Amino acid sequence: RIPVALRPVLRNGSGGSGLRSQTVGNRDGFRADPRGQGGRLWKYPEADSGEGCGPEIRVSKGELAEYEKLSDQVKITEEALRADGFGENPFYHCLVAEILPAPGQPQGPCVVGYGLYYFIYSTWTGRNVYLEDIYVKPEYRGQGIGSKIIRKVAEVALDKGCSQFRLAVLDWNKRAMDLYKALGAQDLTEAEGWHSFRFEREAMRELAGK
Amino acid sequence: RIPVALRPVLRNGSGGSGLRSQTVGNRDGFRADPRGQGGRLWKYPEADSGEGCGPEIRVSKGELAEYEKLSDQVKITEEALRADGFGENPFYHCLVAEILPAPGQPQGPCVVGYGLYYFIYSTWTGRNVYLEDIYVKPEYRGQGIGSKIIRKVAEVALDKGCSQFRLAVLDWNKRAMDLYKALGAQDLTEAEGWHSFRFEREAMRELAGK
Repeated sequence: RIPVALRPVLRNGSGGSGLRSQTVGNRDGFRADPRGQGGRLWKYPEADSGEGCGPEIRVSKGELAEYEKLSDQVKITEEALRADGFGENPFYHCLVAEILPAPGQPQGPCVVGYGLYYFIYSTWTGRNVYLEDIYVKPEYRGQGIGSKIIRKVAEVALDKGCSQFRLAVLDWNKRAMDLYKALGAQDLTEAEGWHSFRFEREAMRELAGK
Repeated sequence: RIPVALRPVLRNGSGGSGLRSQTVGNRDGFRADPRGQGGRLWKYPEADSGEGCGPEIRVSKGELAEYEKLSDQVKITEEALRADGFGENPFYHCLVAEILPAPGQPQGPCVVGYGLYYFIYSTWTGRNVYLEDIYVKPEYRGQGIGSKIIRKVAEVALDKGCSQFRLAVLDWNKRAMDLYKALGAQDLTEAEGWHSFRFEREAMRELAGK
């Protein structure tokens, strides 16, 4: 097993020109405000790619979308991701899994996976957490990194007073389904019959008469 | 058709003792901050029950849970709902459907339905809205109130820059499924195979080692 550490991605200093500008707060902990985190996510500067990391590593939305065979649904810009995740009231929070450098090595963090989550609400059970994305680079799978991300999200959720932790998975993704079940999750679509519905922008415009 | 109006529920004045204490902001509009709304939701004082409204009307979580045959899952307290929905960064927002009083009638608002939503995030499409609850009292169904709530949520979502509007429905609830499809929604569980998974508190504790 490779040594891997999980840490929350933190808010950039305001006015920073890049995602790698000064972070604020405690790198190892979480800020008191459940919405008070944001952070760099999409791009690591070349300087981060230390020895043993190969070329620049990007934990990219494109990679996950390709894996899920839904690449045509990716429509976001990096600017929107930055604005929505790095402000005062970010829309999402993120944990990254980084390979730890060997002792004495100056290597910067090398991201091999991430979990992206936000807080949702149930009028039956109160605050809950939703894990929107969980991704581990193909060459690092089967080493428990995904479970580590899930365990950490559960910990964050409990710390924030959440009573549930939800996520969604595609039915052909047996590997993920089996993992979630093994970790104690229930398939609500199977057990209770919940179906996910979605209105796209066109339908929304028609609904709103815009 | 009875005359029905939709309005957002607004934040109470701080330190108010009841859910009906002074509201702030514009009763008919939305505040600029997408998280800047909260409001009274659960209980209307007796004084609100004007003529034609019968006894005190409560748009209650219990009623919805009973309808969904999942009453045993209701575990929240009114205190938690108030704290989480009425602070600076509320976890949810709410629209209520009220019967309009006849001209010249002093009747207070009479709530017959509500929609409770929050903002979520997709790394593919950005900001989205999620309609967690939609409820219309049984005696007021079949009059387009549910559609009106959905149309209003779509309008709010577009105004806030959302590109999608999601919700979940139980598979035996044909009436709701048919309505959402008629309004332009897609059943993602059917079309793409998405399953909803949930970790409950016990599983979360085990995951987090707490």
